[in-house]
Amino acid sequence: MSEVAGRMSVQVGAHCLEKEQGGRGVLLGGVPGVKAAKVVIIGGGVSGTNAARMAMGMEAYVTVIDKSLPRLYELDLQFGSQLHTLFSTVENIENEVLEADLVIGAVLVPGAAAPKLVTLDMVKRMKPGSVIVDIAIDQGGCFETSRPTTHAEPTYVEHGVVHYCVTNMPGAVARTSTFALNNATLPFVLTLADKGWRQAVSDDINLRRGLNIHAGAVTFEAVAKDLGLPFKPAEKAIG
Amino acid sequence: MSEVAGRMSVQVGAHCLEKEQGGRGVLLGGVPGVKAAKVVIIGGGVSGTNAARMAMGMEAYVTVIDKSLPRLYELDLQFGSQLHTLFSTVENIENEVLEADLVIGAVLVPGAAAPKLVTLDMVKRMKPGSVIVDIAIDQGGCFETSRPTTHAEPTYVEHGVVHYCVTNMPGAVARTSTFALNNATLPFVLTLADKGWRQAVSDDINLRRGLNIHAGAVTFEAVAKDLGLPFKPAEKAIG
Amino acid sequence: MSEVAGRMSVQVGAHCLEKEQGGRGVLLGGVPGVKAAKVVIIGGGVSGTNAARMAMGMEAYVTVIDKSLPRLYELDLQFGSQLHTLFSTVENIENEVLEADLVIGAVLVPGAAAPKLVTLDMVKRMKPGSVIVDIAIDQGGCFETSRPTTHAEPTYVEHGVVHYCVTNMPGAVARTSTFALNNATLPFVLTLADKGWRQAVSDDINLRRGLNIHAGAVTFEAVAKDLGLPFKPAEKAIG
Amino acid sequence: MSEVAGRMSVQVGAHCLEKEQGGRGVLLGGVPGVKAAKVVIIGGGVSGTNAARMAMGMEAYVTVIDKSLPRLYELDLQFGSQLHTLFSTVENIENEVLEADLVIGAVLVPGAAAPKLVTLDMVKRMKPGSVIVDIAIDQGGCFETSRPTTHAEPTYVEHGVVHYCVTNMPGAVARTSTFALNNATLPFVLTLADKGWRQAVSDDINLRRGLNIHAGAVTFEAVAKDLGLPFKPAEKAIG
Amino acid sequence: MSEVAGRMSVQVGAHCLEKEQGGRGVLLGGVPGVKAAKVVIIGGGVSGTNAARMAMGMEAYVTVIDKSLPRLYELDLQFGSQLHTLFSTVENIENEVLEADLVIGAVLVPGAAAPKLVTLDMVKRMKPGSVIVDIAIDQGGCFETSRPTTHAEPTYVEHGVVHYCVTNMPGAVARTSTFALNNATLPFVLTLADKGWRQAVSDDINLRRGLNIHAGAVTFEAVAKDLGLPFKPAEKAIG
Amino acid sequence: MSEVAGRMSVQVGAHCLEKEQGGRGVLLGGVPGVKAAKVVIIGGGVSGTNAARMAMGMEAYVTVIDKSLPRLYELDLQFGSQLHTLFSTVENIENEVLEADLVIGAVLVPGAAAPKLVTLDMVKRMKPGSVIVDIAIDQGGCFETSRPTTHAEPTYVEHGVVHYCVTNMPGAVARTSTFALNNATLPFVLTLADKGWRQAVSDDINLRRGLNIHAGAVTFEAVAKDLGLPFKPAEKAIG
Repeated sequence: MSEVAGRMSVQVGAHCLEKEQGGRGVLLGGVPGVKAAKVVIIGGGVSGTNAARMAMGMEAYVTVIDKSLPRLYELDLQFGSQLHTLFSTVENIENEVLEADLVIGAVLVPGAAAPKLVTLDMVKRMKPGSVIVDIAIDQGGCFETSRPTTHAEPTYVEHGVVHYCVTNMPGAVARTSTFALNNATLPFVLTLADKGWRQAVSDDINLRRGLNIHAGAVTFEAVAKDLGLPFKPAEKAIG
Repeated sequence: MSEVAGRMSVQVGAHCLEKEQGGRGVLLGGVPGVKAAKVVIIGGGVSGTNAARMAMGMEAYVTVIDKSLPRLYELDLQFGSQLHTLFSTVENIENEVLEADLVIGAVLVPGAAAPKLVTLDMVKRMKPGSVIVDIAIDQGGCFETSRPTTHAEPTYVEHGVVHYCVTNMPGAVARTSTFALNNATLPFVLTLADKGWRQAVSDDINLRRGLNIHAGAVTFEAVAKDLGLPFKPAEKAIG
Repeated sequence: MSEVAGRMSVQVGAHCLEKEQGGRGVLLGGVPGVKAAKVVIIGGGVSGTNAARMAMGMEAYVTVIDKSLPRLYELDLQFGSQLHTLFSTVENIENEVLEADLVIGAVLVPGAAAPKLVTLDMVKRMKPGSVIVDIAIDQGGCFETSRPTTHAEPTYVEHGVVHYCVTNMPGAVARTSTFALNNATLPFVLTLADKGWRQAVSDDINLRRGLNIHAGAVTFEAVAKDLGLPFKPAEKAIG
Repeated sequence: MSEVAGRMSVQVGAHCLEKEQGGRGVLLGGVPGVKAAKVVIIGGGVSGTNAARMAMGMEAYVTVIDKSLPRLYELDLQFGSQLHTLFSTVENIENEVLEADLVIGAVLVPGAAAPKLVTLDMVKRMKPGSVIVDIAIDQGGCFETSRPTTHAEPTYVEHGVVHYCVTNMPGAVARTSTFALNNATLPFVLTLADKGWRQAVSDDINLRRGLNIHAGAVTFEAVAKDLGLPFKPAEKAIG
Repeated sequence: MSEVAGRMSVQVGAHCLEKEQGGRGVLLGGVPGVKAAKVVIIGGGVSGTNAARMAMGMEAYVTVIDKSLPRLYELDLQFGSQLHTLFSTVENIENEVLEADLVIGAVLVPGAAAPKLVTLDMVKRMKPGSVIVDIAIDQGGCFETSRPTTHAEPTYVEHGVVHYCVTNMPGAVARTSTFALNNATLPFVLTLADKGWRQAVSDDINLRRGLNIHAGAVTFEAVAKDLGLPFKPAEKAIG
Repeated sequence: MSEVAGRMSVQVGAHCLEKEQGGRGVLLGGVPGVKAAKVVIIGGGVSGTNAARMAMGMEAYVTVIDKSLPRLYELDLQFGSQLHTLFSTVENIENEVLEADLVIGAVLVPGAAAPKLVTLDMVKRMKPGSVIVDIAIDQGGCFETSRPTTHAEPTYVEHGVVHYCVTNMPGAVARTSTFALNNATLPFVLTLADKGWRQAVSDDINLRRGLNIHAGAVTFEAVAKDLGLPFKPAEKAIG
């Protein structure tokens, strides 16, 4: 689903930049003789990379910020000079966010709350009509000003900045998402159907890792830690 | 403005394909393992070419239909095998439209009504939730089912197909459009300011061609013909 | 050699599609205004990837089917939207094969018989004059209708479909293959020459893995299993 | 049809380079660590450009030789550094031909005999097993050693060089060629059907240019000149 | 020679940006995690386009400024979003020059003095250690601070900005330039040798246009105008 | 720093090829109608890959030689047919070096002396005015004729070949290099500052690996071996 969310983030960002949605009224790719918009993507993982790919496809000026140099090397090798890579420091994030038309938050720490890399103070100083899309919103978001929204009312404006923070982004492209999910889950479904859940979870580490709660116990360590609850390994919980 | 409208058409088409807007719920580019959406662009002129470029950028499967073979050759040379070019026949249009997720009408005949290349019958048989964007709407549109809409209420659904027919598409990205217009018109503005309108129009064939009506006379031939009014050449009209 | 076979498969497939060879008479890349041919590659490993690269180079419409999602992600990242990736299900294979002009079977399970992913029933319903190239033929092939052929008589037609099933494809480009083999084997040859075979095989796990039979014992597990013979680890066999 | 012939020339050239056909046994694109084959295309017009595109797609090392600098500039702009462009001099042709694995003759002078740019002496000194494809063969060919062949027996070997000189290359991909021809001729057919031949040829300069002989008179100047017959303009011939 | 000068301008610019030459010590393409340098090219003709191509090849952030919108459209179509195109206004030039690491002046008006598009005031406010390469220097240059230099001493520093203003840039790559010149001039040389100069100049408009002075008369209009001398058409001058 | 040196190597190589620097006077990318220069890069690691990327960007004909087939596969997949990959044998190196305009030595064995892959004899037979850039010079260089130089006097000519052997290449682009170094070292600096050196080196294997000498003992094995000194593991040395 990270792939879907990443790709969608640019599409919704482009839409939010339209005047009617409260945006600056800029076209991501500009036109010949007029500058392209600046898209800043914080986080170069799966969803960030997919966002970058779509933003480059729509011919924006795209920068990815990540704290891992090896990841920046990979992105640079993959996309060449068309993608601008930047090492993650407070200063770099601030400079880029203040110049951006569209900022996409794609910092996902599995099972843990996303770090608030863009502060309220930065958001206040962003360009009027610029747009924030927070892919990490279902883990708390990586902007201090982001709060969950729905497909029915996907955006709100704060400090002049349009925020898109829909928690279930892939739901908007349900058909594509369903096929993608099927592809990813089919082997597990077959295993569960063949063996029954307990045997299947015992045998397969991937299924076991997917077990979050069992019989009142939290069996996923990061979740337990994050909620301040005791953690019980899945192996023990299922006996 | 054709460039802006062409580029925007894909962005709005992608948006309309979302479930919330009544669309099929497909992502233009698909994801690995899931097929991309099919985008059919009727007309390979400036706006059609820009639409194609954006649709390819968003990783859709893109076909351009045009009735000029030399134009198809140029597009093929420009974009290589990533763009599928097809000669315009009734059969080809029908086949492509029925398979499409998004159809963009980009057939613009300067100063004349756009031909209705996609009939009511074809629209009725399109896939449910598919999307039509009619760039030619301000000249009557090239779909039999399209009628003008506004940015406030940009779409309507007919026969299960989402129609986006905003007459002033570039208005949504007012900032980009304004710069683009300035670039294009600045030299003319300077000439008009320097010489006065009559002298300027006398001297400059481009300005003269831009004169549509003067002192009650229609001075643009295609418009006169289309409206069934007498035509008076600009040279004579301004004396 | 997988690289050579993969690259060659498209070249021979294009040739077989010519009328004189019994093919449909289509050009892989089409021409402007005329659709490109559909190439379906089953298996996204080394030979499948090389086949895909050549097929894209010849400007066909190319789909790779694989059962590994991570592999499809890699292919998608590598080749972008020009390559269509599809998750391997019976339904997907059937749909694609029936629409294809050229199907390349590139499913190689090292040391084991290739799975028959394309059934007789599917072949019967393929388009007349379409072409099958079975790279996996030296391990039994992955089409139910494929049987080994030679460079002297490389093809046969069955159910209207041209089959190319030469077991030693790289032999056709002997010069390129010889250089490739030399590059790959030179280090091993030097080791064997320096140390003698027994010492070399004892020291080097890669050489040991290459030992299939020794002193009457099958020393390669997959082969033993496949032929129903007892397996004896190479370490023990050579003492 | 120049497009079809140009694209096919590389496909047949690749086939002829296989050992079984008498070729050198090299794969156009080589493999990693082994050099690609050298393809030299004489003439950078429509068929030469299409040949170049396919040869680059198959990852060969490709050089186009043309006597028009502006054309070389265009090709260079179009294809960048992946295509090597060379000004046509006797010395350049000789150097390139002697180093080539595959030479494609694509010098077409409309209605006139093709110039013999590659001499018997050069062919004699070409690498054994190298391949010549002469697209210009239906106008006499641009190799001194080329003579017309058919799809039934498409090649012959002379001085160790495989010659492919089929006069009707597009016939091999009849399906693609037919669609292409239809696209190109449909408007003319409609005109002829609507107006009758005499009126249509009178009205339309393109049709008139297509008239080669009428009522015993040669109405195409280049043909008349080439055959040493008197020339009568089409306008006069049809009265 | 415009092609050679354009391509060389980036190479010498990159060299001048090294610390030892007085430059800012930046690498055109940056490295992953560190921003690329900004290259601004004023003029999108042949030399500007070639400069842009090399600068993109070295992975800089490249902007071309031109006063012709149609030319900007062409460049945009050619190079896509990797090249940033900007309409030429005083404000745009100023903004870009002040942010640039390397500014290349490529505004060539055939036979006339180049316009001084970058003023002394702008140069003074450029970043210390930034670099100017003035390809138009042999027609007076398009920077107010540029003055001719030689290969022996190619640069000087003024207001902290390194100026490279060698009048005969192609001389540095004499071998490449000589071949290029030969290709371009060979047909004219042959004509001159065959016909004698007077006949050749009479017959061939290109040669005639190349005649600047004859028998004391200036036969090239722009030169005559620029120097304030009377102009005599070549036709009359040679009798 | 390998990235910076690799990218710079092509820039300095291009400069050295200018006549004034003693070079052959060729432009790396040639121009339309004139052949590009041949760049040979020995070693396909980080610096070799970056060199290759820049050389391709400047439109040269680029070959990378490496002794690892898997590495050549990766490079081929990454860059496609634009990069020529060649397996490292004495014969291949000799053939390529003798034909090259620019040879870049990028064979770096961490902590050990670079192998002398290009012999004095080969250098003597290189083309007059060709250029050698030895990135491995700070580990002894990989050309028999290379000896360390400085930015003040970066080159010398031997046997007609220009040698650029500056030991601290990144120093020339100090600004870019400093940012790159900061990105790479910042995490370590923070650790050192927080914990003190001894604790930091004890805790972090990367820091420990960076310790070359401590209290009179050589703590880096390759260095110890290369200098013939006793080796003491860092763990023991720091107690």
